[in-house]
Amino acid sequence: MIILGVDPGTLFTGYAVISGVNEKLKLLCCDIIKNPAKNSFPIRLKHIYDGLVEVIENYKPDEFAIETAFYGKNVQSTLKLGHARGVSILAAVNKQIPTTEYSPREVKKSVSGKGAASKVQVRYMVCSALGIKESKLPKQTDISDAIAVALCHHNRLLMYLGNKNTLPTKKIKLKSKSSRWAEYINQNPGRVLVNR
Amino acid sequence: MIILGVDPGTLFTGYAVISGVNEKLKLLCCDIIKNPAKNSFPIRLKHIYDGLVEVIENYKPDEFAIETAFYGKNVQSTLKLGHARGVSILAAVNKQIPTTEYSPREVKKSVSGKGAASKVQVRYMVCSALGIKESKLPKQTDISDAIAVALCHHNRLLMYLGNKNTLPTKKIKLKSKSSRWAEYINQNPGRVLVNR
Repeated sequence: MIILGVDPGTLFTGYAVISGVNEKLKLLCCDIIKNPAKNSFPIRLKHIYDGLVEVIENYKPDEFAIETAFYGKNVQSTLKLGHARGVSILAAVNKQIPTTEYSPREVKKSVSGKGAASKVQVRYMVCSALGIKESKLPKQTDISDAIAVALCHHNRLLMYLGNKNTLPTKKIKLKSKSSRWAEYINQNPGRVLVNR
Repeated sequence: MIILGVDPGTLFTGYAVISGVNEKLKLLCCDIIKNPAKNSFPIRLKHIYDGLVEVIENYKPDEFAIETAFYGKNVQSTLKLGHARGVSILAAVNKQIPTTEYSPREVKKSVSGKGAASKVQVRYMVCSALGIKESKLPKQTDISDAIAVALCHHNRLLMYLGNKNTLPTKKIKLKSKSSRWAEYINQNPGRVLVNR
């Protein structure tokens, strides 16, 4: 099964094509659709759409996965992102490819075992999952994010198919917190106020 | 010259085709692309795109005008609107039609002379500009809004071409406000605090 993962944006749209599920997990291609800032907004949308249609025609993916937007951004950038997501999804639908959306948290949790993983951690984990050296992967996080979305969908499909052979996820330990006051005071003597 | 005006939305996308500039100002068609709520989001986007492509193929517009989003809405609906706008603009760009965006305020001001005109006022003004009875126009405001966008672009083109024959705009008077305290007190005796 071939999966196309997309991390959309009006200037940089990362994409990654992986094979997996009933065949060897492998990165087939990954890149960025770059839009020069001088391009008008409608031309940018066409560029994203045409770019993804070309990838779909070349690799004929069976599934399409995309990250949902992060609502915390300001309204204007959210609106712009909506346009880029709209034409990305349309590229898949026009080619009759089933589409699935994942929240950034779901994607991070699926590939790294931790919903709040950093972009660097995600990059490290996707490289280790696909057995590629970090130095071989382009530096842009849009690309590693796109691979992560594709891997997240791959893991979800495996789960649905009842195959437990999901990717190994390293649980990243959160900084330990003291659960007792006595322990806390021992660790932070300077924070105790003394009445004299 | 033929102009396509669009008021996008994920459930209802209004559109209107008018002729004008160097020919008689006339409404050629107007309608709504309806999306049943049961349609999945990707299918809705495809439905909007296919609907607009069909209109473009039938009427071969020379220009495409669309309303920019109103940022005051909540972030989630702004994002959804972004998707609908993205695929609408793409339909025009893929057919090599120049696209122009207008803010809701610009559209209202252009057709009614007042940037804060209500939807009812806009509807009244587009009917009077096109010489059609209000009863003949479908009730949905998405349609009158789409006509208004097309008319706004028509007016802008006339202005660029140096033709002063723009649409007559009725200035709607704002409710008069008192400019003097004496007048204000006379009109609002109950708001005066008296020291006894």
